[in-house]
Amino acid sequence: MPFDNLVFNEEIKSPIEIIPKTRHGGDIVTASKRYGIPVNQWLDLSTGLNPHAWNVPDIAQHVWEKLPQQNNQLEKIACQYYGCNNVLAVAGSQMAIQLLPGLYQQCKSAQRGRVAILSPSYSEHQHAWQQAGYAVEAVCSDNINAIIADIDILVIVNPNNPTGEQFAVEQLLEWREQFSKKGGWLIVDEAFMDLTPENSLAQYAHLSHLVVLRSFGKFFGLAGMRLGFVLAEKPLLDKLKDLLGPWPVSAPAREVAQMALADVNWQASTIKRLQKLSKQLACLLEDVNLQISGQTGLFVRVKTPQACYLFEALAEQGILVRYFAATNQAESSLRFGLPKTEMDWERLAQALKLMNASG
Amino acid sequence: MPFDNLVFNEEIKSPIEIIPKTRHGGDIVTASKRYGIPVNQWLDLSTGLNPHAWNVPDIAQHVWEKLPQQNNQLEKIACQYYGCNNVLAVAGSQMAIQLLPGLYQQCKSAQRGRVAILSPSYSEHQHAWQQAGYAVEAVCSDNINAIIADIDILVIVNPNNPTGEQFAVEQLLEWREQFSKKGGWLIVDEAFMDLTPENSLAQYAHLSHLVVLRSFGKFFGLAGMRLGFVLAEKPLLDKLKDLLGPWPVSAPAREVAQMALADVNWQASTIKRLQKLSKQLACLLEDVNLQISGQTGLFVRVKTPQACYLFEALAEQGILVRYFAATNQAESSLRFGLPKTEMDWERLAQALKLMNASG
Repeated sequence: MPFDNLVFNEEIKSPIEIIPKTRHGGDIVTASKRYGIPVNQWLDLSTGLNPHAWNVPDIAQHVWEKLPQQNNQLEKIACQYYGCNNVLAVAGSQMAIQLLPGLYQQCKSAQRGRVAILSPSYSEHQHAWQQAGYAVEAVCSDNINAIIADIDILVIVNPNNPTGEQFAVEQLLEWREQFSKKGGWLIVDEAFMDLTPENSLAQYAHLSHLVVLRSFGKFFGLAGMRLGFVLAEKPLLDKLKDLLGPWPVSAPAREVAQMALADVNWQASTIKRLQKLSKQLACLLEDVNLQISGQTGLFVRVKTPQACYLFEALAEQGILVRYFAATNQAESSLRFGLPKTEMDWERLAQALKLMNASG
Repeated sequence: MPFDNLVFNEEIKSPIEIIPKTRHGGDIVTASKRYGIPVNQWLDLSTGLNPHAWNVPDIAQHVWEKLPQQNNQLEKIACQYYGCNNVLAVAGSQMAIQLLPGLYQQCKSAQRGRVAILSPSYSEHQHAWQQAGYAVEAVCSDNINAIIADIDILVIVNPNNPTGEQFAVEQLLEWREQFSKKGGWLIVDEAFMDLTPENSLAQYAHLSHLVVLRSFGKFFGLAGMRLGFVLAEKPLLDKLKDLLGPWPVSAPAREVAQMALADVNWQASTIKRLQKLSKQLACLLEDVNLQISGQTGLFVRVKTPQACYLFEALAEQGILVRYFAATNQAESSLRFGLPKTEMDWERLAQALKLMNASG
């Protein structure tokens, strides 16, 4: 077995100990402090962001100056891009995740419900519902049919992060149908759906008992902008809009997104490019005998009981990946984002080979 | 009395009827539809924004790409600018206004309290507390001492918007002192404080039972950016940070604000410039016999029972100001923001003279 005999600095604490502070990828500042490597020397593969971002032109001064206009131009273009009738722009799908429990409570007149969340998955869903006082249970995809009669809210990330698991449209619509009969919501977080729009529920998002979340920053590679969209039936979006308050999205973000969402040529070529790079990354990891366990066009996941040590060994070489501890539902794993430049690819390849050789 | 005999288009509805839809200034899109004047032909004086904004340089592509880094650089510079020890950056002080009721509830274990809000004032405070289920009463400054023993939360906008009323630091500290003895919060919204930092509570914001809100967009003229700060004792900010979730402020906003907040020369000359322009605006309004009733460096308020008709007459000439209907606490008024160019000043002057002459 590879990586068995890696020598680690025993004084460095396990990444498990820093996980509570770094619930997310991309936190180079914390990693830099911990490993003593300057921020600008890291190869950050800890997020699932497109490294070949849409190129942002200079923003006119007047865009920064005026309050974001509610002219619906962005919303119109987003509807075309997603293929739906109604969207609500939010400052990152994270913002929607945080507001959904309050929105549900409002719709149900403060009546609590049972929440089941696909696991392992993006941790903020669980965090938001628990913070709002809901009992949350982790569920793996095989068990959903067994419990759906007893739950009020089902949260699915599709394709799932970090497992890459995909759910069929028909299956999701069937679950939604069950909620439509007994009450409750199916929430589908499609943050990584842009490469496979044929699997999206966007065209069904006008149906009741369904909420679809989309992220702008991942596929377009512009996570700093903070933009996402909620797709749902109009009355629900109206309620959410009221919860959001005025001007939830910055004017520059609205301006940039209008251009990027309309740039269909860039989108088409980027889908192909990312699919190719994702395959290339999987090959690189397989070449050093790591076991691929799920991937999307934006990340590749490796499942291994040694994930913790691999994380450390890579971090000591200034390469940050995302570590997921073992849970009842899954063994420990690492998620690798796509390297950007030839040099980044080479650096990752060398680091992996070195570790493999010493094993 | 001037303006008495103005002839209005009787078919146009009173602005009162559009107020519920336009709780705020700056909504040129709605005004454009209503008055049939294209968006780009309006002179927008309906906000209290600095028309001579800080000049935003081009933003590097990598700033848009990465998740906003939590490196505290912005927070450090903001502490220097405001003269305080702790700040939390939020996507506009509006975001903080919306979260304060939930934060209070969390601190008081869901116990409701009585809320008094200075009136007339920025409407979002009242909206947020009412939405969270609190009983809210409007209070004028003269009555605060009479009721403070019976309330749990006091919200003061200082200087007040739209009245321009200012509160002395000693008075505010005395009210805070009362809450420190009996529990509760003094919330001071200093959105328009940048021109008079000597009146700010920033240096006392580390004290308990006090929350200070600051807006970035108004003084720096960059409202599209969505940035504000909360100043309070550290434990409270930590709780609010958790409510906010990760990445509440966009990376470009963090980048731009770091530069603007450090630009002390621009700040000093801008304070002088705005004070001069504000006086100039007040003179212009007095010249047509309008009665000034409060002003800051960023707006001038005119109190008149004819506010509604003046609003219409200006709007028909493509000049949008902010209309405030009469309440129990105040008669109807108009708020004028500062014109920007010589042509804007001239356009306002001509419109006012025309209306005055026809009176």
